[in-house]
Formats: sequence, structure tokens, C-alpha cells
Amino acid sequence: MPTLYMTAPSESAAEIAQTVVDERLAACVNQFPCRSTYRWDGDVHTGDETILLIKTTAEGYRQLVDRLLELHPYDVPCIERFDESHIHDPFASWITDSVSPHVGGDRQ
Amino acid sequence: MPTLYMTAPSESAAEIAQTVVDERLAACVNQFPCRSTYRWDGDVHTGDETILLIKTTAEGYRQLVDRLLELHPYDVPCIERFDESHIHDPFASWITDSVSPHVGGDRQ
Amino acid sequence: MPTLYMTAPSESAAEIAQTVVDERLAACVNQFPCRSTYRWDGDVHTGDETILLIKTTAEGYRQLVDRLLELHPYDVPCIERFDESHIHDPFASWITDSVSPHVGGDRQ
Repeated sequence: MPTLYMTAPSESAAEIAQTVVDERLAACVNQFPCRSTYRWDGDVHTGDETILLIKTTAEGYRQLVDRLLELHPYDVPCIERFDESHIHDPFASWITDSVSPHVGGDRQ
Repeated sequence: MPTLYMTAPSESAAEIAQTVVDERLAACVNQFPCRSTYRWDGDVHTGDETILLIKTTAEGYRQLVDRLLELHPYDVPCIERFDESHIHDPFASWITDSVSPHVGGDRQ
Repeated sequence: MPTLYMTAPSESAAEIAQTVVDERLAACVNQFPCRSTYRWDGDVHTGDETILLIKTTAEGYRQLVDRLLELHPYDVPCIERFDESHIHDPFASWITDSVSPHVGGDRQ
């Protein structure tokens, strides 16, 4: 099952996490602060961000990405998918039960 | 080699980490605090947890999971395995030397 | 595209991050503090470290590892590569534009 790795400004992270779980596009989000060093417009910058690790189903992944792109304040957000090679079955079932992308969660 | 991703209540994390390294089921554990947003019993909750990244051998992985399920306070813990596509050889050798699941480490 | 996972002493992490982005061996580094429990010289230790998640291109990965081995204070650093199964295209392009290992960045 996919874990979506994303960074976001710290002030947006909590709301993004709440929204995608509320809307049943993700089962859970683990988020934590980090320092990011990156090259932008030719210069190297370092600043505070938040990493979000977002757990969803394979079927729901694309819709989750689309919604994150709506919610995210950056033009070019870091969004990457990592797939595990084993997952504790009861946890996998819980993710499946918590995510219902087709219905679009409480948005409808 | 596997990296096992797990979340746990912050008050349990340190002891879990110490136990699996003591018992030679893991070579090392990197742990750090996070905020988790998740759906449980129909409602969305946000609370503090700790993420544990636990490094072991492929041979030791199953025994590590079984031990974690004994130690973990949740009914349905998040346990996932991620495999790297490259590892620095000396570090891989150190993991192999630090883990001896069959012997069960100091438990015997 | 590769994400390189590395741990380092907290006092070295910021400089390592700045160097590999300056030298165009990486597009960005997300770093955050952690507690590490590990076995060394027969005993189990716990101490503070920093995790660095370093994003680069497949072509630049080997040169990045070589440079990190020069910069890192440990004899046996934790260096592992994880590859995503999906990446947001504009972010992938930004990584490609930010990394130019062959030129060796500003070192020349």
C-alpha cells in the first residue's frame, strides 16, 4: 500500500492532514517538522518545513494526489510514493476501511 | 535490507527500541516524535506519537515483527517494511553482525 | 528517483546538507533530529542523531555517496537508497535541473 511523502509549509500541514483524512482520501497522516536545504532560483536556501507521510490505498492514490495539488500552496510540491514490501494485515485492513476515494468522503 | 516503519505511543517507544536491539532482533532504531491524524471509530483524531525506523536483516524480519506485536500496546499497530535498493556495504555488514534472530539475542 | 537515507551527528548534518546542495550533487535535503538506539562494540547505546533525506537523480547517486563518505565523520555511516514508485512530474524536473553531478557543481 502506498505511503505518500510530501513536504509543506508548517502552517499548512495540519489543515492538509485533517482535510484528506476527513474526506476519506487517506487513513492517516504522520507529520513532523524538518529543516530543508534546497536550490531555488539559482540560490541555496534553508528553511523550516513539515514532512507528511500519508497512508492510503492503491486505488485512492491518484485522487489523493489531485486533492493535495489543490490544497498545497507551492507551485512545485514534493510528492512521492513509496510502496512497502510487507504490511501488518490488520493495519492494511484498517487503511482499506478508512479510505473511500470513489465516494469522495464527506465532500459529497 | 528491511527498514521496518512503526508508530507507537511516545511512552512506549524508547523501551521497544531498547528491547529489540538488546535482543539482537534489530541492529538499530531511529525514533522521532510526530503528530498523527487518523480515523478511528468513525471520528478523526489528532495526537502525538513516535515513529520508529527499525533496521534488521531479511532473515530476522519475521521474528522482529512477532516480538513487536508482543511489545506494542495497540491492537492494530502500523507495521510496514520498506526495502532499500542500495545500502553502503560496511553498514550492511554491521547490521548482519548486530542481528542474530535465531539465537533470540539475550533472551536465552 | 533516489532518496538517500543517512544519519549523522547533529553537529555535522547542516554542513553536509549545505555542501551537497551547493555542489549540485543533490536538489534538496530534508533533515530532522532523532534518538538512535544501536549496538556498538558489544554494548547497546542511545544517543541523539540527525536523519537526512537527500534527493538526487539516478545518474548522480553514486557521486553523491562518494562525496558523503568524504564528508561524514563516522567510519561506518548509515547510507541507504530508497526509490519511489511515483513522483510528481514537475518536482522530478526540478530535481533534474538542480543536480549536475558530472560538472561537480561549484567545486570546479
